[in-house]
Amino acid sequence: MTALTPGVEAAPAVVIGAGLLGASVGCALTLAGRRVHLEDRVPAHAIVASSRGAGVITPAQADRVGLVVVAVPPAAVATVVADALTRFPHAVVTDVASVKSSVLRGIDHLQVDASRYVGSHPMTGNQFSGPLTASADLFTDRTWVITPHASSSPEAIAAVREVAELCGARLVEMPAADHDQAVAQVSHLPQLLSSLTAGHLREVPADHLRLAGPGIRDVTRIAGSDPALWRQIIAANREAIRTELTAVRADLDALLTGLDDDDQVEGFLARGRDGARSLPGKHGSPQRELTPLTIEIPDEPGSLARLFTGLESAGVNIEDLAIEHDLSRQVGYLTVQVHPDHSTELANAIRDRGWTVHAGPQPGQTSL
Amino acid sequence: MTALTPGVEAAPAVVIGAGLLGASVGCALTLAGRRVHLEDRVPAHAIVASSRGAGVITPAQADRVGLVVVAVPPAAVATVVADALTRFPHAVVTDVASVKSSVLRGIDHLQVDASRYVGSHPMTGNQFSGPLTASADLFTDRTWVITPHASSSPEAIAAVREVAELCGARLVEMPAADHDQAVAQVSHLPQLLSSLTAGHLREVPADHLRLAGPGIRDVTRIAGSDPALWRQIIAANREAIRTELTAVRADLDALLTGLDDDDQVEGFLARGRDGARSLPGKHGSPQRELTPLTIEIPDEPGSLARLFTGLESAGVNIEDLAIEHDLSRQVGYLTVQVHPDHSTELANAIRDRGWTVHAGPQPGQTSL
Repeated sequence: MTALTPGVEAAPAVVIGAGLLGASVGCALTLAGRRVHLEDRVPAHAIVASSRGAGVITPAQADRVGLVVVAVPPAAVATVVADALTRFPHAVVTDVASVKSSVLRGIDHLQVDASRYVGSHPMTGNQFSGPLTASADLFTDRTWVITPHASSSPEAIAAVREVAELCGARLVEMPAADHDQAVAQVSHLPQLLSSLTAGHLREVPADHLRLAGPGIRDVTRIAGSDPALWRQIIAANREAIRTELTAVRADLDALLTGLDDDDQVEGFLARGRDGARSLPGKHGSPQRELTPLTIEIPDEPGSLARLFTGLESAGVNIEDLAIEHDLSRQVGYLTVQVHPDHSTELANAIRDRGWTVHAGPQPGQTSL
Repeated sequence: MTALTPGVEAAPAVVIGAGLLGASVGCALTLAGRRVHLEDRVPAHAIVASSRGAGVITPAQADRVGLVVVAVPPAAVATVVADALTRFPHAVVTDVASVKSSVLRGIDHLQVDASRYVGSHPMTGNQFSGPLTASADLFTDRTWVITPHASSSPEAIAAVREVAELCGARLVEMPAADHDQAVAQVSHLPQLLSSLTAGHLREVPADHLRLAGPGIRDVTRIAGSDPALWRQIIAANREAIRTELTAVRADLDALLTGLDDDDQVEGFLARGRDGARSLPGKHGSPQRELTPLTIEIPDEPGSLARLFTGLESAGVNIEDLAIEHDLSRQVGYLTVQVHPDHSTELANAIRDRGWTVHAGPQPGQTSL
């Protein structure tokens, strides 16, 4: 840890909101030798967080506090940040909410000097999971966005950078508006379209759902998220989300209008494939075409370990994997993605060890 | 194999279209002792399929053929089925296309007697993958839908059932219209909504895509599918797809109209969660809440095998797993889903073996 701001660093820190994120920041700060005071509306949360090594539950001496981390639910963040700026007159204040402009607007509305505030968004975890599983390494190698604003002081920016670095995160800096547009595009819009797809399943008869394969499971996985939390996230980023949703509705309208024109449909599908490929791949490299192999695994202890021993002794790098269970009998299928040049070699090596290997994706794959 | 139709069974079979599906059916029929003749518009495909054990490439004696399996691209199926019914006057004819009513309509249009035809949809593989990876066990435990129609003869239905059973598939019977509606709902609509989500990413700046986590990757995974193939599938099931898409557009319109009303947004999200939960879970049981644990794995041979040995010696059943690679350094994260009662026990056991375990989902998870 580089001591960027020795004066601030030595001062105690306060974490407000001792859920998974807040308690984990507390653990990381404590581990770095900093005194951390925990606050939570639910005292039991602070006690549990303290027992996880996140800090102490005794009150801080307000005028000595150098850093406050606000980790409360999205709807409460601006108020709590503004309150912290007032209560702790010498502290740099940050928060961990997933939308940033709304916090700035809220602080501005409350007419508080925000020069000691810099927003953060550590992209991990779920602050509603509670402190029981908090850990100092929750942020290791995760992206941590910080969003300095026009009146953020250089000292405040340095202090918040230091928190992210101390937590082992990968630091990304961008203005709050850019951040909010980015998460609307890569997180909030996909959430809503996953919910849209999943919500439609409520109209589907049970005997039709029997034909569901891994494709629809992938598309609807994040639709399982907590509606009460996401309600707050969407409220906080409403205008950016409205822009994206409106653009997507126009694309959907165009698809419906052109549904009778096969060339238009293919163009729509090709744009989707291009978009999917634009996501950064493993280690930041462009995505590659991989070949799937599916291996049948008895649903019993030890079989995965035996299988991986076999897979890896074949000396072929496994680029990705997924597991799927058969609905009717006690068996699973492990699908591994390997480089096309090595797929035959790997399939043969695994077959030689007595496993059943299928070419292609896992069973029930959205079929053609 | 039960000899339901001994007369038909003894007669040779013809597979038209020696891609992955056709060649794999050929392998399964050959393995069951049946003589199989392979046909393909591209002779090399038939030769490769033959080398995989799918049958012979010499022409069949047409009036002796008892079974024809048509495994050509969707747009060609009806014509090839009608032609087969004419060329092979005593054969039961089936196909493997993923949409069924359009085949029936096509045959009807061609004014061919369809009593010897029964449609099939083995839900696996990709007929464009070619015969190189064909195998008799491609269909083992996969769903195989057969769609008898009003004039299908009982003998034809029995013969096609037998093919599915002989291939080791799980047989589901439903009328073609029901099948097509079901796949529109659980396969074609999710494909289009995944493409819609992914297509929108083309408008997203590269520095915003850096914030993409596993959520959007899940939603857009199937958008990587082949547009030229899906164009045909969508054309074949256009009206069922239009119905679903129109309903979904109404849901999207309602979301946009109600975006300022947090209760409406939460209701929309809650319907999505209910829909996602309506998908059948492992072994057909209702889906359960599971607790994710994420383990850091060095990106080197042997580490997965070591890890699984550790995981499984802990005696905790792993319900699901996924792997994600960090974009910036050579490390992966394995997220395992375990029953909540066992998560602490497992985390401790794995930590004791020197692994770094994070509570919660994998890094870059669509963050909160």
